[in-house]
Amino acid sequence: MVAWLLDVPGRAVLIIVIAMVLRWLAHRFINRLTGRAAQGPVPGILANSKAGVFLSDLRSGTSERRRQRAETMGSLLRSIASGAIWSIAFVMVLGVFGLPIAPLLTGAGVAGVAFGFGAQTLVKDFLSGIFMILEDQYGVGDAVDLGEASGIVESVGLRVTKLRDVNGTAWYVRNGEILRVGNQSQEWARTVLDVTVAYGSDLELVQQILRDEAHALFEDSTLSSVIIEEPEVWGVERFDKDGAVVRTVLKTAPLHAGDVGRALRSRVLRRFDEAGIRIPSTTLPPSGGAA
Amino acid sequence: MVAWLLDVPGRAVLIIVIAMVLRWLAHRFINRLTGRAAQGPVPGILANSKAGVFLSDLRSGTSERRRQRAETMGSLLRSIASGAIWSIAFVMVLGVFGLPIAPLLTGAGVAGVAFGFGAQTLVKDFLSGIFMILEDQYGVGDAVDLGEASGIVESVGLRVTKLRDVNGTAWYVRNGEILRVGNQSQEWARTVLDVTVAYGSDLELVQQILRDEAHALFEDSTLSSVIIEEPEVWGVERFDKDGAVVRTVLKTAPLHAGDVGRALRSRVLRRFDEAGIRIPSTTLPPSGGAA
Amino acid sequence: MVAWLLDVPGRAVLIIVIAMVLRWLAHRFINRLTGRAAQGPVPGILANSKAGVFLSDLRSGTSERRRQRAETMGSLLRSIASGAIWSIAFVMVLGVFGLPIAPLLTGAGVAGVAFGFGAQTLVKDFLSGIFMILEDQYGVGDAVDLGEASGIVESVGLRVTKLRDVNGTAWYVRNGEILRVGNQSQEWARTVLDVTVAYGSDLELVQQILRDEAHALFEDSTLSSVIIEEPEVWGVERFDKDGAVVRTVLKTAPLHAGDVGRALRSRVLRRFDEAGIRIPSTTLPPSGGAA
Amino acid sequence: MVAWLLDVPGRAVLIIVIAMVLRWLAHRFINRLTGRAAQGPVPGILANSKAGVFLSDLRSGTSERRRQRAETMGSLLRSIASGAIWSIAFVMVLGVFGLPIAPLLTGAGVAGVAFGFGAQTLVKDFLSGIFMILEDQYGVGDAVDLGEASGIVESVGLRVTKLRDVNGTAWYVRNGEILRVGNQSQEWARTVLDVTVAYGSDLELVQQILRDEAHALFEDSTLSSVIIEEPEVWGVERFDKDGAVVRTVLKTAPLHAGDVGRALRSRVLRRFDEAGIRIPSTTLPPSGGAA
Amino acid sequence: MVAWLLDVPGRAVLIIVIAMVLRWLAHRFINRLTGRAAQGPVPGILANSKAGVFLSDLRSGTSERRRQRAETMGSLLRSIASGAIWSIAFVMVLGVFGLPIAPLLTGAGVAGVAFGFGAQTLVKDFLSGIFMILEDQYGVGDAVDLGEASGIVESVGLRVTKLRDVNGTAWYVRNGEILRVGNQSQEWARTVLDVTVAYGSDLELVQQILRDEAHALFEDSTLSSVIIEEPEVWGVERFDKDGAVVRTVLKTAPLHAGDVGRALRSRVLRRFDEAGIRIPSTTLPPSGGAA
Amino acid sequence: MVAWLLDVPGRAVLIIVIAMVLRWLAHRFINRLTGRAAQGPVPGILANSKAGVFLSDLRSGTSERRRQRAETMGSLLRSIASGAIWSIAFVMVLGVFGLPIAPLLTGAGVAGVAFGFGAQTLVKDFLSGIFMILEDQYGVGDAVDLGEASGIVESVGLRVTKLRDVNGTAWYVRNGEILRVGNQSQEWARTVLDVTVAYGSDLELVQQILRDEAHALFEDSTLSSVIIEEPEVWGVERFDKDGAVVRTVLKTAPLHAGDVGRALRSRVLRRFDEAGIRIPSTTLPPSGGAA
Amino acid sequence: MVAWLLDVPGRAVLIIVIAMVLRWLAHRFINRLTGRAAQGPVPGILANSKAGVFLSDLRSGTSERRRQRAETMGSLLRSIASGAIWSIAFVMVLGVFGLPIAPLLTGAGVAGVAFGFGAQTLVKDFLSGIFMILEDQYGVGDAVDLGEASGIVESVGLRVTKLRDVNGTAWYVRNGEILRVGNQSQEWARTVLDVTVAYGSDLELVQQILRDEAHALFEDSTLSSVIIEEPEVWGVERFDKDGAVVRTVLKTAPLHAGDVGRALRSRVLRRFDEAGIRIPSTTLPPSGGAA
Repeated sequence: MVAWLLDVPGRAVLIIVIAMVLRWLAHRFINRLTGRAAQGPVPGILANSKAGVFLSDLRSGTSERRRQRAETMGSLLRSIASGAIWSIAFVMVLGVFGLPIAPLLTGAGVAGVAFGFGAQTLVKDFLSGIFMILEDQYGVGDAVDLGEASGIVESVGLRVTKLRDVNGTAWYVRNGEILRVGNQSQEWARTVLDVTVAYGSDLELVQQILRDEAHALFEDSTLSSVIIEEPEVWGVERFDKDGAVVRTVLKTAPLHAGDVGRALRSRVLRRFDEAGIRIPSTTLPPSGGAA
Repeated sequence: MVAWLLDVPGRAVLIIVIAMVLRWLAHRFINRLTGRAAQGPVPGILANSKAGVFLSDLRSGTSERRRQRAETMGSLLRSIASGAIWSIAFVMVLGVFGLPIAPLLTGAGVAGVAFGFGAQTLVKDFLSGIFMILEDQYGVGDAVDLGEASGIVESVGLRVTKLRDVNGTAWYVRNGEILRVGNQSQEWARTVLDVTVAYGSDLELVQQILRDEAHALFEDSTLSSVIIEEPEVWGVERFDKDGAVVRTVLKTAPLHAGDVGRALRSRVLRRFDEAGIRIPSTTLPPSGGAA
Repeated sequence: MVAWLLDVPGRAVLIIVIAMVLRWLAHRFINRLTGRAAQGPVPGILANSKAGVFLSDLRSGTSERRRQRAETMGSLLRSIASGAIWSIAFVMVLGVFGLPIAPLLTGAGVAGVAFGFGAQTLVKDFLSGIFMILEDQYGVGDAVDLGEASGIVESVGLRVTKLRDVNGTAWYVRNGEILRVGNQSQEWARTVLDVTVAYGSDLELVQQILRDEAHALFEDSTLSSVIIEEPEVWGVERFDKDGAVVRTVLKTAPLHAGDVGRALRSRVLRRFDEAGIRIPSTTLPPSGGAA
Repeated sequence: MVAWLLDVPGRAVLIIVIAMVLRWLAHRFINRLTGRAAQGPVPGILANSKAGVFLSDLRSGTSERRRQRAETMGSLLRSIASGAIWSIAFVMVLGVFGLPIAPLLTGAGVAGVAFGFGAQTLVKDFLSGIFMILEDQYGVGDAVDLGEASGIVESVGLRVTKLRDVNGTAWYVRNGEILRVGNQSQEWARTVLDVTVAYGSDLELVQQILRDEAHALFEDSTLSSVIIEEPEVWGVERFDKDGAVVRTVLKTAPLHAGDVGRALRSRVLRRFDEAGIRIPSTTLPPSGGAA
Repeated sequence: MVAWLLDVPGRAVLIIVIAMVLRWLAHRFINRLTGRAAQGPVPGILANSKAGVFLSDLRSGTSERRRQRAETMGSLLRSIASGAIWSIAFVMVLGVFGLPIAPLLTGAGVAGVAFGFGAQTLVKDFLSGIFMILEDQYGVGDAVDLGEASGIVESVGLRVTKLRDVNGTAWYVRNGEILRVGNQSQEWARTVLDVTVAYGSDLELVQQILRDEAHALFEDSTLSSVIIEEPEVWGVERFDKDGAVVRTVLKTAPLHAGDVGRALRSRVLRRFDEAGIRIPSTTLPPSGGAA
Repeated sequence: MVAWLLDVPGRAVLIIVIAMVLRWLAHRFINRLTGRAAQGPVPGILANSKAGVFLSDLRSGTSERRRQRAETMGSLLRSIASGAIWSIAFVMVLGVFGLPIAPLLTGAGVAGVAFGFGAQTLVKDFLSGIFMILEDQYGVGDAVDLGEASGIVESVGLRVTKLRDVNGTAWYVRNGEILRVGNQSQEWARTVLDVTVAYGSDLELVQQILRDEAHALFEDSTLSSVIIEEPEVWGVERFDKDGAVVRTVLKTAPLHAGDVGRALRSRVLRRFDEAGIRIPSTTLPPSGGAA
Repeated sequence: MVAWLLDVPGRAVLIIVIAMVLRWLAHRFINRLTGRAAQGPVPGILANSKAGVFLSDLRSGTSERRRQRAETMGSLLRSIASGAIWSIAFVMVLGVFGLPIAPLLTGAGVAGVAFGFGAQTLVKDFLSGIFMILEDQYGVGDAVDLGEASGIVESVGLRVTKLRDVNGTAWYVRNGEILRVGNQSQEWARTVLDVTVAYGSDLELVQQILRDEAHALFEDSTLSSVIIEEPEVWGVERFDKDGAVVRTVLKTAPLHAGDVGRALRSRVLRRFDEAGIRIPSTTLPPSGGAA
């Protein structure tokens, strides 16, 4: 009888002590994690990234909100950890007292597998997020195309990435749904201008105009500083239904392909009008009515 | 014999007592949960959110219905919890009496796995809902695009989100089916007005008109208060099949991009008519018939 | 020898008695379930729903058929329950007699898992059905869009929902395939009338006509009672390939957006003809041939 | 030694006897099932269904073929049942003789799970078929749209449904691939006639003609008996690219929506020609060349 | 010691003997299977099928190739069977000698499950093939539409079906990828001829011409023997963008719908030209240039 | 103590010896496999295949590269085999010494299952490759359509097939992603020439020209040798939006359908020009401008 | 008592020692792996690949960044390895002390399976990456089409491949999402020039011009060195809606198909203008307005 008391209760107490220690460790680990998350997403890696000075206000403005969210997340995680540890300890104690715990384990296993099926997208989202951050695919302030949405990155989370598109819509994209990332903010960009001219146009003249205007933009304009190479006119890229398509390319600093393209389009249109070169369109020219 | 009576019945009674305690705890937990759900979805987080005063009537009007639904859900959950606990206790007691419970566990396991396969979308929906609420992706009253449907959020549930689209149709979208969320009600929005003008039009004039009208809207109009930055005319965004596309952008308060756009479109059309600038269309102009 | 007889047969008899009790309980539970299903799908929740008086004939007409189906379903479920209980009891008795039952359990487990894979859509359908009914997403008589089909709900089952579309086709949609529900019968609806007018039309006049006719419909017409708010003309919604698109909206009682829209369209067309405003079309006007 | 002989061989013989009994029961069950299948698919439910007298020849013509197929299926199922029962019994006897059967069970389990993955579509097909028959979604002779194919049902099997489309092609559709069923043969159908008339046409006249002709068809024509309600002209359903779309609806007996529609179309075209109302088309009118 | 020798080695020898017997049985079974496969796929069922005399040369020409393939397949299967049986026997003998075989079983289980995931499409293909052959969905020589490809069936295998399309391309389609089968060679086919005539055409005349020509084809032409019912003109099937669509149908012998359609089209075109009825086309009539 | 030494160490040594033997066998098996792979993919089957003399240089040119790849693959496989065998032996020895190995097995099982999920596409690719090679679906030099890409087969691997398309792009297609194979190099091919002629054209003349030119090509031209049957003009295949479509077919040797088609098209165009038959096109004829 | 001390603590210490050794081995293995990764992805295989001299600067520029990333990845992997080894050792020690560890193992198994479901895409990405590198499908500097994105390969990682497209956008594509690879940089490429000429054009002349210009390009031009075979004019490839399509092909060095095509297109257009051959377009020719 004494042996029984000494043996069984002793083991039960041991289990409870270990559970308490583990719970304390788990809570400490979670606190450290959420503490870090409250200050910014994975700061060590992103600290010296592209997200420079002009992002500081973006960050400070949302830091209170992030702190609250980290708090909520942390209390949820702590509840889950405590629940898991005490449940397992409880079943172990039952086992120590000689009760048949197989039914309990079967029940838990079935519930766990059912839950696991549903949670797989969650796990996938987190793993994708971790690897995308480790591989430094994009940072706050980059212009990216995530397939589901395109825009400027506002925050890089473990589960979701938040973008802002040109219409000001905020997009929350789950990291696991991102099959490929197109980042337009790395090293350089290129303006590719495809102009369709009607068959029978003077192609030499067209290419000369394109070359002149691209060069002028490169040499002396407000955009000279962002064009990083002498522009090139590649020639007739393809035969289209409406005419021959001539391609011009300009290598630019990241995020400036749009400005350069708009400037070049305006200049080229003006020169085309002067030279009487027509871009084919399915509607009549405006002067047609007056003729 | 005495040892047998003392040993086996004692353990059976122990199991039953523990089951009763667990069942009482589970019911109390469920009651607290559904009690909270009856008052509103996750009030702590959404309380100080965008869903302000004008939503109070929406809420009060549906509160009785929500109370009933929480009641139904609660009684269902209580039945499931009682069933699970008593079933496991029953099998444990059988095991205490030395019956071979492996067949029972195999049967339960098979049934559980089969059920788990089917329930995975359910679990996915709930997990997605929990995280979307924790991350505060949208709240009641926001204008969102969930992919499956777009409209104003009417309620944010754990399993489904209810929207109301522009036609008044109420959409119930399962949270697990939402791959990305586009929220148009955060911080700011932007009116992007792309106007196509025929090739050969006077682009300087077109851009001047757009700049004038956007500025007039920003300076002195009923919409001045919702335009939060000096409008910009970006220039020729692309060469289209029908003409050159000129882009104008206005940064506005959330949910006002539509109003501003409509006002600007009316003003620009009037000025274009005066200036004789034509937007290309595949049909003849109305004055054509009279000519 | 006596101990052997007392021990093993006693446990075998115990197993059989318990199996008989469980089978009786399962049959009673199934009978109660199918009895309820024979009277109508989940009456407690739907009793005081939108499906009012005019649905009573729909229900009585199909009640005999439903009773038969419930009967068939019940007998099937009873067979399955009996089979499951007796099979498990049989294996347990074999185990009591000391036979190695692991091969049997492996066989059953493998068959069960294979079956479970195939049955997952079935489970998904039932779970989706239960939750859609609990959340009261739609009831008999509602006009819904389930993605797979649109129409009036004729019955809400646990596995399938039956609709009737405008062509009179009866659609059976599995509940698990319904990703989102669009319900057009809740609280209110809205007629959104987008009219395209050629560029160069007098937009002030167009908007005035739309405002007049919508108001007339709201003030004095047979449809006054179902229009629940002063109509609004929102303005130029977008620039289309064929002309400017002007939007008018009228808030109506549920299911009346169609009637109101048709009435408004007729009135607007008549006024446009009078005022000489043309809706662009790719074909010539009828008077063109006579000219 | 005697105890060993009595104990082990006795249990082995017991296993073999039980296996023989189970095999006999399984064969009898399979024979009864295939015997029923040879006479027709689920006769009890379909006996008094829509598939009336005119289907009797269809059935008698294919009954010999069905009998053969049932025979083949039955012999296959009997081989599977025998194989499964003897395999399990064999492993149990090995276990009785004290051999380590865990490797065998692992091998069988792995093979079974691999097979189960592949067989899941098979199980899904059968379960879908059983439920579709129980719910009486369609019967032989109904006109259905199964998504994969549309046509007249020729046979309703547990795994596949056979249709015949309008071109005479026989379609075999796996029941598990049917996401939704559209049945055009239940209670009633509706002819929905959408006529596009050019903008500027006399809409009053158009609607009057449609009303007259639909009423004439309802009152005195060979199709009077299948039109079950006074036809209605709903009005201008939508503004199309080519003109205004006017909708007329006629409620008909099932499967007669096509005939009624064709008759109405002929009548309406004749009246439109007389009244000079033009349906817009992208090609010139035939008299145009002569003019 | 003697008992040890007698007990353990005896059981090991028993395992090896049983393994040898099972291996011999498995090889014999595989030989019989591949022997049958070498002569033709499932001959018992297809022997008296549609694949009649004219297929005999197709078969003899490919029989040597099939024999070789069966041989290769058989030797592969025999290797797999031997490997599986000896591996299991080896582990059982290790177990008899008291070594801990749990790690081995875990390793084998993990490898088996990983393999099973990948092999599921293979199993699916074979199961689909077996059922399609049992249900006699199509045979060699039938014209079928399998979704992935359409053409004449050249061989029906357990894993793949081989078709030959109209361009002479040989298509190998995996049976598990076939969601539905359209078989155009069963009992009868139907030519459905939809002719579009311009709005304003004389519909009576059009229908009369169609009726005349279809009847002529049915009465006295080289195709009379394959048209198995008096042709019908159904009337105006729908209002198209280009004109009214009139439908004519002819029931024909299987595989003759194409011939009949071509003949009817030629005849109808000639009559239309004579009667001056125009089929609308987006290009000008050939005589237009001459006019 | 002696018994302990004799028993436990003896079993440990036995395990290590068996592991060494198995490792040696596994390495030998892998060496043989990669040795064969280094010489060519499955030479026994493809040796006497279509890949004749002109492929020999293709092979010799890539043989060194293949040898290196086989080497790399072999060393990887040997590492995996050694790792697996020693890990299992290590755990078995731990078990012999009485340590609780269940945690280790659970860990390994979980890792293995997680890995197995990810490796399933790999297994699928290999199994598909093995069966496609066994069934001889295509060989090096065949022109195939694999869905993902079309072109000439350059190599048939177990995991990927390498094609070269008409643009010279090398395509690597994973075998498991190939749902169906279209092989244009088996026995024969067919040129199907569909010519659209305007409605109102002289169809007799059109068919006569097609018949003449196809026959001329068959009788006396450089392509006579590859056309293997008298060409046929099938007649009016369908009524198209632009005119009647007439079909001509020529059975050719494999891979010559393209040449024959191009030759016939040139001849037919010349004859049509002479006969004044017009193929409808949406643009004006070249002589139109001159007129 | 002594035996207890000697037995249980001894085994516990043994477990801890083994765990320390394994952890040391794991860390060393990880260090070696990340050390290699820091210097370049799989250098042994790619060292003598196409990525020649001009890539050296690309590499040196990114080497510091790669070293940091390898460091981060390594510390993560080390943490995971330590965590796994100590957790398993901890549970084994608990088991040595006789505590019931089944609940712990069940918990770990459930968590592991749930995690494994989510991690499967990760494993798939890595396995795909390993095989693509082993099979040398592409290297740094190749122009590839991965389906998700096309461009020049900038780095080949185990999990993701980084491309740079023509617009300068950097694309990160997960290796497991790549179903097929199209590599345009292997051995040779081909310019395929399809020119549409109006029906009625002089096809002999057209083909002569194409042949002349392609030959001139091959014989004497700056591109002579990259055209590796006498160009061929294949003839009329197909009948298009707009005219006959004539195909010309030129075999070129890899990556030069674009340049050659542009040069040929310019030359052909000039000759066509001279010869008065028109490429059909849906808009009028520029000289048309002047005529």
